Amino acid sequence: MSGPLSDSELEKIDAYWRAANYLSVGQIYLKDNPLLTRPLVLDDIKPRLLGHFGTTPGLNFIYVHLNRIIRLNQANMMYVIGPGHGAPGIIANTFLEGSYTETYPNIERNADGVKRLFRQFSWPYGVPSHDSPEVPGSISEGGELGYSLLHAYGAAFDNPDLIVACVVGDGEAETGPLAASWHSNKFLNPISDGAVLPILHLNGYKIANPTLLARIDPDELQALFRGYGYHPYVLEGDDPRTMHQRMAEVLDTIYREIRDLQRKARENNDATRPRWPMLILRTPKGWTCPAVVDGKPVEGTWRAHQVPLDEVRTNPEHLKLLEQWLRGYKPHELFDEHGTFREELAEIAPKGRLRMGANAHANGGQLLVPLVLPHFRDYAVECGTPGAHVVSATSVLGKYLRDVMRRNLSQRNFRMFAPDENASNRLQAVYEASGKRWNARYEDVDESLSVEGRVMEVLSEHLCQGWLEGYLLTGRHGFFSCYEAFIHIVDSMFNQHAKWLKSAKDLAWRKPIASLNYLLSSHVWRQDHNGFSHQDPGFIDHVANKRADTVRIYLPPDANTLLSVTDHCLRTKNYVNVIIAGKQAAPVWLDMESAVRHCAAGIGIWEWAGNEAGGEPDVVMACAGDVPTLETLAAVTVLREWAPELKVRVINVVDLFTLEPVNSHPHGLNDEDFDRLFTVDKPVVFAFHGYPTIVHKLTYNRTNHGNIHVRGYKEEGTTTTPFDMTVLNDMDRYTLARDAIRLSPATAHRVKDAEQRLSEVLQRHKLHVTEHGEDLPEVRDWNWTAR
Amino acid sequence: MSGPLSDSELEKIDAYWRAANYLSVGQIYLKDNPLLTRPLVLDDIKPRLLGHFGTTPGLNFIYVHLNRIIRLNQANMMYVIGPGHGAPGIIANTFLEGSYTETYPNIERNADGVKRLFRQFSWPYGVPSHDSPEVPGSISEGGELGYSLLHAYGAAFDNPDLIVACVVGDGEAETGPLAASWHSNKFLNPISDGAVLPILHLNGYKIANPTLLARIDPDELQALFRGYGYHPYVLEGDDPRTMHQRMAEVLDTIYREIRDLQRKARENNDATRPRWPMLILRTPKGWTCPAVVDGKPVEGTWRAHQVPLDEVRTNPEHLKLLEQWLRGYKPHELFDEHGTFREELAEIAPKGRLRMGANAHANGGQLLVPLVLPHFRDYAVECGTPGAHVVSATSVLGKYLRDVMRRNLSQRNFRMFAPDENASNRLQAVYEASGKRWNARYEDVDESLSVEGRVMEVLSEHLCQGWLEGYLLTGRHGFFSCYEAFIHIVDSMFNQHAKWLKSAKDLAWRKPIASLNYLLSSHVWRQDHNGFSHQDPGFIDHVANKRADTVRIYLPPDANTLLSVTDHCLRTKNYVNVIIAGKQAAPVWLDMESAVRHCAAGIGIWEWAGNEAGGEPDVVMACAGDVPTLETLAAVTVLREWAPELKVRVINVVDLFTLEPVNSHPHGLNDEDFDRLFTVDKPVVFAFHGYPTIVHKLTYNRTNHGNIHVRGYKEEGTTTTPFDMTVLNDMDRYTLARDAIRLSPATAHRVKDAEQRLSEVLQRHKLHVTEHGEDLPEVRDWNWTAR
Repeated sequence: MSGPLSDSELEKIDAYWRAANYLSVGQIYLKDNPLLTRPLVLDDIKPRLLGHFGTTPGLNFIYVHLNRIIRLNQANMMYVIGPGHGAPGIIANTFLEGSYTETYPNIERNADGVKRLFRQFSWPYGVPSHDSPEVPGSISEGGELGYSLLHAYGAAFDNPDLIVACVVGDGEAETGPLAASWHSNKFLNPISDGAVLPILHLNGYKIANPTLLARIDPDELQALFRGYGYHPYVLEGDDPRTMHQRMAEVLDTIYREIRDLQRKARENNDATRPRWPMLILRTPKGWTCPAVVDGKPVEGTWRAHQVPLDEVRTNPEHLKLLEQWLRGYKPHELFDEHGTFREELAEIAPKGRLRMGANAHANGGQLLVPLVLPHFRDYAVECGTPGAHVVSATSVLGKYLRDVMRRNLSQRNFRMFAPDENASNRLQAVYEASGKRWNARYEDVDESLSVEGRVMEVLSEHLCQGWLEGYLLTGRHGFFSCYEAFIHIVDSMFNQHAKWLKSAKDLAWRKPIASLNYLLSSHVWRQDHNGFSHQDPGFIDHVANKRADTVRIYLPPDANTLLSVTDHCLRTKNYVNVIIAGKQAAPVWLDMESAVRHCAAGIGIWEWAGNEAGGEPDVVMACAGDVPTLETLAAVTVLREWAPELKVRVINVVDLFTLEPVNSHPHGLNDEDFDRLFTVDKPVVFAFHGYPTIVHKLTYNRTNHGNIHVRGYKEEGTTTTPFDMTVLNDMDRYTLARDAIRLSPATAHRVKDAEQRLSEVLQRHKLHVTEHGEDLPEVRDWNWTAR
Repeated sequence: MSGPLSDSELEKIDAYWRAANYLSVGQIYLKDNPLLTRPLVLDDIKPRLLGHFGTTPGLNFIYVHLNRIIRLNQANMMYVIGPGHGAPGIIANTFLEGSYTETYPNIERNADGVKRLFRQFSWPYGVPSHDSPEVPGSISEGGELGYSLLHAYGAAFDNPDLIVACVVGDGEAETGPLAASWHSNKFLNPISDGAVLPILHLNGYKIANPTLLARIDPDELQALFRGYGYHPYVLEGDDPRTMHQRMAEVLDTIYREIRDLQRKARENNDATRPRWPMLILRTPKGWTCPAVVDGKPVEGTWRAHQVPLDEVRTNPEHLKLLEQWLRGYKPHELFDEHGTFREELAEIAPKGRLRMGANAHANGGQLLVPLVLPHFRDYAVECGTPGAHVVSATSVLGKYLRDVMRRNLSQRNFRMFAPDENASNRLQAVYEASGKRWNARYEDVDESLSVEGRVMEVLSEHLCQGWLEGYLLTGRHGFFSCYEAFIHIVDSMFNQHAKWLKSAKDLAWRKPIASLNYLLSSHVWRQDHNGFSHQDPGFIDHVANKRADTVRIYLPPDANTLLSVTDHCLRTKNYVNVIIAGKQAAPVWLDMESAVRHCAAGIGIWEWAGNEAGGEPDVVMACAGDVPTLETLAAVTVLREWAPELKVRVINVVDLFTLEPVNSHPHGLNDEDFDRLFTVDKPVVFAFHGYPTIVHKLTYNRTNHGNIHVRGYKEEGTTTTPFDMTVLNDMDRYTLARDAIRLSPATAHRVKDAEQRLSEVLQRHKLHVTEHGEDLPEVRDWNWTAR
């Protein structure tokens, strides 16, 4: 078989691949006798055989051939693998190229190191079985399939020199996010972005079933990828030597094609979407593992997915087969008498930063350049009398974000992401600074689309989240605005990112990356257009389950606090920041300096809103979120009429985790401060943006917890008026006022009267909205006035 | 323009379409003067203009043409719309065909009824703006895009006569779930299943941006759908008359093609996947709305997405335009002097059950046939001494499910769903009764695949969930088994289904459907192979936020309780049941009769496990979940040595919501019973399967809440040993024993000693796992023995 490889190159490439495969098998099985210097015995075998071999030889095959391309062309390449359970292969390769030992010096490049490498894998207090922050060169938490191609595109954005090779395999292509993410090519600019090389690795099977794309007609498969806009190359086979030649050939072609397309685009300043090449690679699952075990085919079937020989510890025949399998890679030809990878083989790997395990982009914190931020105070909205001025908080924020965008255009390290909702969320001012990225057909009516735009809009929360993760993990900054209810679509992606952050923090060599910033707007209380399906504030609960050192949740009550909070979040690292703020016109409560102080504290008494006048209050009215704040302050005015003598304290919470004890969350108040705010024995009426129970969850250990009475969203909703939403969920001003009266001993005598008033006003409300289709004038036009 | 329609047919079809469009616009704008019997005045206009017009004329166009196909062929058809915000159109059409009035008699077929129809839309205490249970003929909660095609396939399964027309539009095709769901054709059997007719409605725009598929090369678009395995037809235009002829033509062709493919398959008993037809329909967004408003193009652009003229209330010019627009449909030609739709037009709709708003499948509860269930007691595992017998609970369940499958094969109304995880979750016995559905290429090595199989496996939680929802909503039964961590992938789909169930319950005409049953296995505590990325028990928290009348969460501690719980769940209606159970070998604690009693109560004292002997205990050891139960019982044995005098009560919780007060959840214990179990003042050490805080959330109102001390998953994990997972999260038996000693006044003198013992044993554990890679023998081989 002739091809681009000389005999000697072919030998070396094959040997290198065998070495990677050998080290992969070793990690799964061996705790001793790493280089088979003596016959294998039971005692060499790990007690628990944990890992995945099936995808690994294919990953190794690709790795060694990418190495060749990198070396030949001094190419800047990253490797993103969808089947992250193939980590043994990536660990093996980074060990062979030396980047692993540079990262973990205790894993030396000799027999001792190989033994430690094997032993630590899937071992308690060792390294995980999946791709993870621990693996040099990785940017993906392996395990949950579906996001590799999105990470790859996110990495390629604004890195014009970079090529991200991305393996999609083991059924990942069947997942929704992956199926949609092929279309990312319509958001890539061939001039200013890098390239993604998708490699669809069809090894035929997932865990227990064939994969769909391996079993459709080859014509359909070709059509599908042409339809997605790619130029598919196909390579299929199982004879290693033939496959090495052909892989070298096809990668040479693909590499030239990528660079040609880029050159053409850049020389002609023509960013028109090219038809990027991609590779469909068909190799057997578990390639090179035993073909048949106990009379059943293993290589080339799903049986090779995890541990192809799983009875090694109990079945001597399996132990023998394992030894044959390992010796089949000819380890003595690969490692010298010290157990060191032979120099003539090691030399075919790229050097230094060009090694994929040492690519700087894969440890993005190293490359992180802080954002140049405008002074957020410059965007302050006038306040005057609290609540007198009404403004859409997110449209104010839009102007600030526009200038964040502007100031960082030249750094090319900030992008905004939204599932077709930036304008709906009132952030459209940002288009003045940069358009919406679009690399498909344009029409005359189009507005704000641009092939250079830095606002990423596509109708997929998955795509937004995945691109953003890839962008952040490679050392850049981003901002994701989303309808509150639909952020649940990426619950699981958020989980994996939070897990990545948690694990990465324990690794000194991983430098901190920019936080993932969410703005959740069009929230539960103001889904006037859309109703019940758009009403779910539960992302708060989902996020709150994650580690306190990773997550932050902010509920700024107005435009100025939103500015202050956002400015803060854009400066942080290694967090997930969730900001929840409405887009509808709403009162401004604090002037900018008060807003900054309030946000810095995270929680505070709004003295101007209460009437405790230095003494002890009868009741604490607490609130978190813009609509709850509005209803709470309105409740205070209702109380002036219903129970004028009641001494009310108003507390507003911006930073949700201030509620939690300080030993649970670094933002938590200590008990003394908490007690000072919430008292130790007075009733607390708490109006909360989300499901009420989380307030109990955060405060159940506090002294006064038994007196905290929470109102929030209780899953009642539809297309109705803003005020009716609060009525349906018992969070309206009148109900809050009645609650305060009922819970305060000082107003025991007024309870009956309050119930009566409440019933009357709610009945009047219901008649009015049913008759007129809008809220009572006194509710619509309500304005805070100091007493 | 010639075509299949005679002039008179063409006239009628166009008039019918105009009527539907007129009624759609009317719903968005008008509260009075419904048939324009006088000039439009401001007072006729709704105070809040809420709704979506952009997609609606296209939906109406398709509806009237499907009507024609139904009538011509007496076809059994359903209509599933992805852009569910186009509900005004569906409501209009069901009103025109009469099914709306049959469902809601107060919306009469006259001017009064039209007025009510208009007024109620997006009106407080009226009907929602989106497709919803309130809409006759609908099975999809409109609002969140992405699931229409899955619902359509789910509906078509096992309904060989049915054709489900499914509109994908307004950018839905960009979502992940939708992008993957085109591949559902590889899971459809042309003999025993019905057909899905996907209609990709390219009206060019989503909320604020062009849609991708509208802007790629027509060749790419064709290739994409050929690649997905379809035979795409394309129809494009904006001249109504031409479009009517061509639509009639293409639908005639498509309908014939579908029936031909089915006939061929059925006559030849050849289920080979056909290349099903699909339609790509390009019509302008907001077709027939004002072309230009205030100098800006509206029809054919994103500006028509919601309310094309949005200043009608403030801008007299807009009001005039609205009147012109409405009169353009010539309402006087469509409705007679009573405001009744003219008989000669009404007659072109199908009759009776053939009307899409009256299709029985769309109110699936009507068709629901209960499952024939085997006696679950027959699958009981012997218990003997509690904990002495060890078995994989899910593999026991697999045998029961196999027989559920068998007994319902002839009813063809039960399917199982899993993302490539049924066998991994140890349910493979079910393949003895029915194979895994596969309609792609077969190879010799394949096992248990079958084109008739009733086990649906694909590597996508979205596809599993969406198909199952469609299957349930059309009156069948299903069972979804999934890795616990990855069920978060469908958090948002679960939300929408739960919302559907909640709203549907309020509608007497909607008959109850079978519950959605989840088995979450391969759970957080036993991810030996996969580690951190696979560890997340938070679906519990997500589900618990939904309405108490809809959700149930069960944590059966062993095989027998799992059987009992599953049997119960399969009999229920209108719930979402979440069952969490491990797949690894684990102790059997209860014989079947005890298990049944325990599950019926949902919670109970395990007297055999404690030593309170009728008196008051010193400490309550509570547990929920299989691993927490194991660790709790082991802790009890540890306590026998560390604090033999300590009187321990053991409580096990199967039904999580028993913890909640009965006024919050129907399964909740009343306070008296709760106090009797948990005492009013004794310390409670609670070992919980998931994140600990939910126990606080459920119990914060209970008398003894202040003494409840919960251990659970605190987001610590990796690939490690089973016992080490409990150690990492402070839920191991030794820590639980120490907790009991520390919290009980009776053992104050033993605290120091217990701390010492704990520290020693955990150190010994850590040394052992690090050295040997497996748990201490005393932990691995631990067995409960009665004292």
